[in-house]
Amino acid sequence: MKHNFGAGPCILPSEVFQEASQAIIDFNNSGLSILEISHRSKAFEAVIEETEALVKDLLSVPDGYSVLFLQGGASQQFAMVPMNLLPQNGKAAYLDSGTWASKAYKEAQKFGAIEVVASSKDANYTYVPKEYTIPADAAYFHYTSNNTIYGTELFEAPQSPIPLVCDMSSDILSRKINVADYGLIYAGAQKNMGPAGVTLVIVKNDILGKTGRDIPSIFDYRKHAEAGSMYNTPPVYAIYVSLLNLRWLKAKGGIEEIERENIIKARTLYDEIDRNPLFKGTAKLEDRSRMNVTFVMENAELEKSFLALTEERGLVGLKGHRSVGGFRASIYNALTITSINTLVDLMQEFAEKNA
Amino acid sequence: MKHNFGAGPCILPSEVFQEASQAIIDFNNSGLSILEISHRSKAFEAVIEETEALVKDLLSVPDGYSVLFLQGGASQQFAMVPMNLLPQNGKAAYLDSGTWASKAYKEAQKFGAIEVVASSKDANYTYVPKEYTIPADAAYFHYTSNNTIYGTELFEAPQSPIPLVCDMSSDILSRKINVADYGLIYAGAQKNMGPAGVTLVIVKNDILGKTGRDIPSIFDYRKHAEAGSMYNTPPVYAIYVSLLNLRWLKAKGGIEEIERENIIKARTLYDEIDRNPLFKGTAKLEDRSRMNVTFVMENAELEKSFLALTEERGLVGLKGHRSVGGFRASIYNALTITSINTLVDLMQEFAEKNA
Repeated sequence: MKHNFGAGPCILPSEVFQEASQAIIDFNNSGLSILEISHRSKAFEAVIEETEALVKDLLSVPDGYSVLFLQGGASQQFAMVPMNLLPQNGKAAYLDSGTWASKAYKEAQKFGAIEVVASSKDANYTYVPKEYTIPADAAYFHYTSNNTIYGTELFEAPQSPIPLVCDMSSDILSRKINVADYGLIYAGAQKNMGPAGVTLVIVKNDILGKTGRDIPSIFDYRKHAEAGSMYNTPPVYAIYVSLLNLRWLKAKGGIEEIERENIIKARTLYDEIDRNPLFKGTAKLEDRSRMNVTFVMENAELEKSFLALTEERGLVGLKGHRSVGGFRASIYNALTITSINTLVDLMQEFAEKNA
Repeated sequence: MKHNFGAGPCILPSEVFQEASQAIIDFNNSGLSILEISHRSKAFEAVIEETEALVKDLLSVPDGYSVLFLQGGASQQFAMVPMNLLPQNGKAAYLDSGTWASKAYKEAQKFGAIEVVASSKDANYTYVPKEYTIPADAAYFHYTSNNTIYGTELFEAPQSPIPLVCDMSSDILSRKINVADYGLIYAGAQKNMGPAGVTLVIVKNDILGKTGRDIPSIFDYRKHAEAGSMYNTPPVYAIYVSLLNLRWLKAKGGIEEIERENIIKARTLYDEIDRNPLFKGTAKLEDRSRMNVTFVMENAELEKSFLALTEERGLVGLKGHRSVGGFRASIYNALTITSINTLVDLMQEFAEKNA
């Protein structure tokens, strides 16, 4: 058995894989593969409608918001957000809390003036900046709720005089959020929602259409909202697997239950990191992510052999990102406490051998 | 058994579905699902490299071209093509041969001056315009090689003093083309290449970087080319299924063999349409598509009952697009001659009953 700690694309529940595999052969006893049905068929319309309904249900999306399934990942949102929200000659504000946050504001600079209100780059993004003022004259304030590479997370939506835009790619559906706090939320699916190839966007309708830009149709949220995410051929299978995953989440008790589990999983692993003399965390304590746990060894020379041991025992994806080094355990929704305990046991075993 | 004549997403070979299903449970005996592996893993790097190599091999792509796997479908290319090829204050030329060709030039108008050199719209796009001059002072000339809705196809690349850009979404990989005739070819995968969710782009490198535009990175072909289609997380599974489909095509004899089969399939069906007194084709004879065969009944009142009969016998997806009415048989690479013969038999059976 493998324990998949990969950062994304990443683990999904095994029940989801079973159903997802079956539908490739025969979707809903139709005699057809899910890969060969028309996106305009009643069968697929039912899929996309249920997927949208489950997102609204699980995240308690209020009226006045559109839930969209798009393509191109968070990187495409880095451009679509300013296209749709930043007026010609306008200004937007960004928080620089990591590599992806930084890419987001750099792309936005191609569309207008960008004010970076704060950055933790000088500290290699080991914390989330907290001391800053959001300018009231900007069109929106953009931040990244979970920094996948650096293992930091911002749990509270900042107080803001302007619409909040948040990249939740790596923590959406992992904990309760108040959608009404946001003007726009986006997330590449490939962490907690589904496989690579679909992007979730939740947008407050009344913030759209105010830029004065002639937006290409395919990048205009309004076109996608009007067409129920079927402006053009959607990524059928990625949406279907997301549906299976959302059903799994709903059946196990929804966001409340998964957040409870995620808190236990993260605490179990951080406790071992803090207790075990060989290891230490890299992120500032109060900003530690519940999704990506980054840690190194006190003696860096031991890292190679610990990594080899994890691989030997079927724990995959634990090598840290080159920007941080050491290890990164991505412990998304579908990763079980059993996998966490297996890693913790291995850390203890390794510490005994190397005491 | 179903015979899938759907226009897209559409039939793929049953062998492909078998392997595609297995990989969801266990990819290459890795103990992991293809849906949960990292796009940066060696295993997926091998997938994307082989997919690219097979496209180059099957289409004899010459040196100096990049083969890219992107997201967003042909509709996204409608915007990306002018972003990357149309200089600020420049002009591009388009041929209007159908609904999608028309959408392409309307999106391009958001980026500069567009000259529509000819249109068959007045004749409900029943033919491909042939009398026109391509302006030498335009940046490129765009056309659609196969008009999925209207059942027309342009088999010869037009002589052009400027780079040709072609939307080959519905006939790529169905017949021999000379890539060197083109500056850029694009195609949504979901007809002959793979499932929905990935878009093929083949672009001549030396036509890029000449617009003076500050292109958002995610829409810049050069960024994707430099990164080997891994500028951001690619649609892993859609690429993998495309690979399986390309392997199938290669094993059966490549483009030469599939073109031979496609000619026989199309001829068999058009022969019956022309012979059978109840049916008639809608496209002009010399422009008839080998991929989408559009036809109506002499007595339109019979169409409902013929459609019902096809569905009763397991032939799906034959209802014509509302712009044309009647029937559309999409007979892509994976559709067998057996399915064609089944349809022809049914047309004959119906004609006898309604003689």
